[in-house]
Amino acid sequence: MTFIDQWLRSDIRNINAYHVPSAKNMLKMDAMESPFGVPEELKDEFLEYISRSEVNRYPDASAEELQATLRSLMGIPKDFGVLLGNGSDELIQLLSLACSSGDSIMSFEPSFVMYELVSKFAQLNYHGIPLDENFDIDLNATLLAIKTKKPKLIFIAYPNNPTGNAFDYDVIREIIQSTDALVVLDEAYYAYSERSFLTEIDNFSNLVVLRTISKIGFAGLRLGLLVGSEETIEQLNKLRLPYNINILTQVSANFLLKDSQRIVSNAKIIMNERGRLYDELSLIPELTVYSSQANFLLVKSDNAKSLLESLKESGILIKGFAIGTQLENFIRISVAEAKENNVLLECIKDYYG
Amino acid sequence: MTFIDQWLRSDIRNINAYHVPSAKNMLKMDAMESPFGVPEELKDEFLEYISRSEVNRYPDASAEELQATLRSLMGIPKDFGVLLGNGSDELIQLLSLACSSGDSIMSFEPSFVMYELVSKFAQLNYHGIPLDENFDIDLNATLLAIKTKKPKLIFIAYPNNPTGNAFDYDVIREIIQSTDALVVLDEAYYAYSERSFLTEIDNFSNLVVLRTISKIGFAGLRLGLLVGSEETIEQLNKLRLPYNINILTQVSANFLLKDSQRIVSNAKIIMNERGRLYDELSLIPELTVYSSQANFLLVKSDNAKSLLESLKESGILIKGFAIGTQLENFIRISVAEAKENNVLLECIKDYYG
Repeated sequence: MTFIDQWLRSDIRNINAYHVPSAKNMLKMDAMESPFGVPEELKDEFLEYISRSEVNRYPDASAEELQATLRSLMGIPKDFGVLLGNGSDELIQLLSLACSSGDSIMSFEPSFVMYELVSKFAQLNYHGIPLDENFDIDLNATLLAIKTKKPKLIFIAYPNNPTGNAFDYDVIREIIQSTDALVVLDEAYYAYSERSFLTEIDNFSNLVVLRTISKIGFAGLRLGLLVGSEETIEQLNKLRLPYNINILTQVSANFLLKDSQRIVSNAKIIMNERGRLYDELSLIPELTVYSSQANFLLVKSDNAKSLLESLKESGILIKGFAIGTQLENFIRISVAEAKENNVLLECIKDYYG
Repeated sequence: MTFIDQWLRSDIRNINAYHVPSAKNMLKMDAMESPFGVPEELKDEFLEYISRSEVNRYPDASAEELQATLRSLMGIPKDFGVLLGNGSDELIQLLSLACSSGDSIMSFEPSFVMYELVSKFAQLNYHGIPLDENFDIDLNATLLAIKTKKPKLIFIAYPNNPTGNAFDYDVIREIIQSTDALVVLDEAYYAYSERSFLTEIDNFSNLVVLRTISKIGFAGLRLGLLVGSEETIEQLNKLRLPYNINILTQVSANFLLKDSQRIVSNAKIIMNERGRLYDELSLIPELTVYSSQANFLLVKSDNAKSLLESLKESGILIKGFAIGTQLENFIRISVAEAKENNVLLECIKDYYG
């Protein structure tokens, strides 16, 4: 038995490390990335901007310029507070660290796996309330769980990942009203969604909204943000590691996020493509396609595993789910550009002959 | 009372957020940064390298190329494991999360403040063993504390920050041997130090070594690394957030850290300047200068607070310490280039007339 085997908490020892499949030379349609990189015509100006950053100096600890850029891009009111993270993952971890060990944390199943993983790190008790057969929230079961488990923290992905649907707005409002928990609306896919809870922060003191720039074209920069009342963010900021946003992310995001028109029009392209993919895939009788308010589609197929393998052989990477889980017969397709989507459609049509 | 006031753990509520002083237009000699930026003659190639990175894609989760670059730069043996963090701060936090809440964590006082702060986040009991009047480890007191407090984790900054000295090598070996704790040798200042514990990893299964590129010219990139046995790192890696090193840090560090000759020669320049500053400051009777194996000098002065203010008025930022603490009559000077050091020396000489 090695030193670390007897030193480390058994609950961590028993985790399988988060696995990221190799994507070399593959068409990546598995990770909800935007297919749009930095436009050629902006590259010189972008690099000029980067070249002015002093990599030998610590980054601006409060990232003030970047905060202003994000406020402008996302229309965040002046009187709300904003807390930045190294991806929203870091902010999910920060929220779990704000709890006391042994506290309960709640979310829905299936949803974003990081809520459960991070709550394990912080020694919280995770309760995943099952979604119904349409992947909607079962309000009665949720209210009962709130009463009995008394969660300290509730994560609601809106729209939900990996299902793509946005839960009923009024159901979520009712959940927020029914609990003393801090409720985190994770709006990672806000750019592709019809509604947002951002302005509801004024109405509910126990509501914060989590966002990221990963799904709108900048997954490589690792930048998430938590929006809440000024008082809430000021307190949670005490748990932030002081220099968590590196200088190149600050400088790049400052430059790239000011191009808000392009970000909006890129999102529109993806939403159009999402509609087209939905329609085309729905024509294949072996598939059930779920409607989505995100930049991906959840698809049910009795041949999910074999379809996935076939696509992989054709050089297309799609997300599958572990055998034995609720979603084992599902795949999740990240919507890409028309050309890439067409390659995917061809391959799927070929598969079903 | 606001929602967050009653929601948040009182120990976090009572923290004062980590304060970073404004440094606009100041000569920065407070934060152990390297004065050397990206050399002019490398800038074009550097930008060319950056321009190839796809910011719309998630970064390489395992950062394999960067791992290889760091291994080569720091001479890390192939059979050791390496874990990367968003600065060593994130790795200190990861180590504290590996413990169980209520576990004891030990370090020395004064030392790097992050050990205590992060252990508070993770609800660990922090024990800071006082250093003696020369800022050396009191071995007997330490061995006694290990026996009674049974720490799970021991942080030893080597060389120590903010004192600059490297503790006795054999004393540290004895500490490692006397405990079941995981002992973390924090070698943030390794480039300016005579010795390292890196190869001792082969001798002690409970030893890991923490490093960073912040003090060798790249504080803005936020990159720390934890080195240990393969088994230890494989287990601790389960606590790492999957995409914690952003793409621009990976790409930049890959380019900039390959220039190892320059990194070594820059460190030599700083060590020479450290010697010169030490000699010159020692000539001022009102000052006591402590010898250092880091890129900064600790200096004692009965007029510390007034000297600090005077330097600030002259546009020089130096680190002072809070009133009421052991170091209230000390200042900490980060060694910079000759020209900047001369400005500092002039100002200090002026101050003492």
